[in-house]
Amino acid sequence: MSKLQSRSKLQSRSKLKIQPVKGTRDFYPEDLSVQNFYFNKAREIAKRFGYEEYDGPILEPLALYEDKSGEELVNEQTFILKDRGDRKLALRPEMTPTLARMVAQKQAELVKPIRWFNIGPRFRYEKPQKGRSRQFYQWDVDLIGEDTPEADGEVIAIAATFLKELGLTPNEVKIKVNDRRLMEEKLKLIGITGDKFLKVLSAIDKKAKMEQDEWQSWLSEIGLTHSQIRDLQGILKDKDFSQESESLTRIFSTLSDLGLSSFVEFDPSVVRGLDYYTGTVFEACEVSGEFRSILGGGRYDNLVATVGGNPTSGVGFAAGDCVLEEVLEKYQKISSVKITSSQVLVTVFDEARFRISIQLAAKLREAKINTSLYLDPKEKLEKQLKYADAKKIPYVVIIGPQEEAKNEVALRDMNKKTQENIPMESLIDYLRRRS
Amino acid sequence: MSKLQSRSKLQSRSKLKIQPVKGTRDFYPEDLSVQNFYFNKAREIAKRFGYEEYDGPILEPLALYEDKSGEELVNEQTFILKDRGDRKLALRPEMTPTLARMVAQKQAELVKPIRWFNIGPRFRYEKPQKGRSRQFYQWDVDLIGEDTPEADGEVIAIAATFLKELGLTPNEVKIKVNDRRLMEEKLKLIGITGDKFLKVLSAIDKKAKMEQDEWQSWLSEIGLTHSQIRDLQGILKDKDFSQESESLTRIFSTLSDLGLSSFVEFDPSVVRGLDYYTGTVFEACEVSGEFRSILGGGRYDNLVATVGGNPTSGVGFAAGDCVLEEVLEKYQKISSVKITSSQVLVTVFDEARFRISIQLAAKLREAKINTSLYLDPKEKLEKQLKYADAKKIPYVVIIGPQEEAKNEVALRDMNKKTQENIPMESLIDYLRRRS
Repeated sequence: MSKLQSRSKLQSRSKLKIQPVKGTRDFYPEDLSVQNFYFNKAREIAKRFGYEEYDGPILEPLALYEDKSGEELVNEQTFILKDRGDRKLALRPEMTPTLARMVAQKQAELVKPIRWFNIGPRFRYEKPQKGRSRQFYQWDVDLIGEDTPEADGEVIAIAATFLKELGLTPNEVKIKVNDRRLMEEKLKLIGITGDKFLKVLSAIDKKAKMEQDEWQSWLSEIGLTHSQIRDLQGILKDKDFSQESESLTRIFSTLSDLGLSSFVEFDPSVVRGLDYYTGTVFEACEVSGEFRSILGGGRYDNLVATVGGNPTSGVGFAAGDCVLEEVLEKYQKISSVKITSSQVLVTVFDEARFRISIQLAAKLREAKINTSLYLDPKEKLEKQLKYADAKKIPYVVIIGPQEEAKNEVALRDMNKKTQENIPMESLIDYLRRRS
Repeated sequence: MSKLQSRSKLQSRSKLKIQPVKGTRDFYPEDLSVQNFYFNKAREIAKRFGYEEYDGPILEPLALYEDKSGEELVNEQTFILKDRGDRKLALRPEMTPTLARMVAQKQAELVKPIRWFNIGPRFRYEKPQKGRSRQFYQWDVDLIGEDTPEADGEVIAIAATFLKELGLTPNEVKIKVNDRRLMEEKLKLIGITGDKFLKVLSAIDKKAKMEQDEWQSWLSEIGLTHSQIRDLQGILKDKDFSQESESLTRIFSTLSDLGLSSFVEFDPSVVRGLDYYTGTVFEACEVSGEFRSILGGGRYDNLVATVGGNPTSGVGFAAGDCVLEEVLEKYQKISSVKITSSQVLVTVFDEARFRISIQLAAKLREAKINTSLYLDPKEKLEKQLKYADAKKIPYVVIIGPQEEAKNEVALRDMNKKTQENIPMESLIDYLRRRS
């Protein structure tokens, strides 16, 4: 049984006075170590590409999202609260509007291009289900102030490198890339323009989640003719017209130079749901189609201006924790995660020797050796050893009367189940060689 | 001018359409690097004492805080929102109730004692001012399931080690320790018991923030006589009766064994404001008294039972970011913080050589060298060098026609302002030796 399954089972079993809020998660140390495993990897890779970590408030004015993030996100999925001045605040459902606000605020001083990333909580009032929670975590990566297709290529390369270094292969995950400008050209050819174009984009974004019939009636409602619907379906299936876009051609060429071609492909059915995307759009999906997308992003050249800054181009993506964990579980990529604990437990032989144990623990910690001290001098040694075993602490130090007399410690190797006496003064070196 | 002052000045200057929510903070990379400096130190020290990192939801049921955290915190300082089922939710004002809920939920399986820490956002609806924001960050450290005074000593030792390793001295900060059980004994001797005792505790907690007259009238309102008020003031000034408590004596003895005596002192005027403390209480303060406390904590032996678990003892503390930053600023302990950026910038000589630069950047990153790539092939080299300078990137790679012909790169040392040509294949070794 996997760690994640084990956790959710335990949670459903509890009979507490106060239950956690629906759709939120508790991260016990073993759960957080899984999250740290992939987000530390994300942090490492972002830095490898020259990106700097930033953060912003979890509470933002609701107005920051209105007219930008899309109606569904703002009206139906945002946690809204009012402050005591009756102003509407939102728990941030995504990070990009905060980023745009922060860039606009210090636009003159910031060195461009800006390469930033953030890892932190986001909130959506959705029905909790597989791959969704109401409080979740995202890794956001953004490149602002550079509008070459190679900039888009760099951001997609970060996403691909992340998936690759988590151990996922191109047979398991793919990043599907498209360009809304190319779609505008193609749909213009079949008479879909202006407002109708934007509505059709929304419909394309929802296609995978709908029945074929239902989707076609939606298109009819938008005002598409039968032949337009047929042509549209043809376009969405055609994987062979990306070379009509110079931008996409250069993006794929960049990803080839970076050795990441096998992770990316052109897909005209990917358009993304957020209103603010203006060009390139992309998402990473597990190949079977059983999960929502692992990450998604695109180019947003108007967003900084919308919040009051000077027009500045931007491109970025966000990767959430929930779907990513499920995909890593499916392909067994998180089996090796270890819980951080101590390297050594200093036991307490009896009350008379408690002080010696406390002082030894202090010395080990001064030498930067992670050390747990047993805190109850009345407890039997046997139970103290059981504690080390349960916490998977590899070494245990015992100082009894004999050891004290000789200025030695008994050192027990919990894995090998062996024990030897060594001089007190060589303990630090001994443990360092084995860390 | 310090970084922090610089930041706040810039923020007040901005004229944006959408202002951030009052009392929240934007963390630009240079600000976040300061926060990472002290919280990474906190993380390191917690692990050195054998503590494991956990996390819980930011949204909790309001009921989790009612009757536990104290009236002021719940009624006046909590951000409250209602979900669509009209249930009252709170943005967590502190972490300990979440911890108690999580422990109660898995009580049978968790190995005791539980040594856990968390670093994350908290929310209080207070008037934003020096040392307070509405969204702030705290480091919480807790030890659950061990009720010896040495357990309290360990937790206080973690706090003291943290302050010490940030470079603060006992002349700059002190941890003041007291015990509510000892205070109960002492106040009983002057006839203050029961309900009156709890009210007097609240008054003691607020003493430092009030005028002498105002404070004395409050005590009169509680029902204290003139002589009781005089006796109480005598007790609060007396620094010499901690030996009447066996628990405090053992705590100070433990801290002496751990070499941390100079950082701690007994202070009967410290009682802490939270209702759930049952024994030891402590707080760390900068010595001049110009700041609020840096961290505060104590023993809470009933909290796990209050949320529905079996009775379990606990002791812990929380350290906030705001006051800590001000104290570190005052004593100039954060001057050495560097912003993480790249070790090298790969420039682009012209459009024809863009692909060579992209491929070289990929090779450097594969070798785990943090690398920025210039993304606009039309930009003059001079401007590319200026970018490296502004971002404090120490090395710049240039590949022009001559370098390309000889399979070399020109490597510029931005600090020494020197440049030399080296074979392409020795670049990785060269940079690794200098990282």
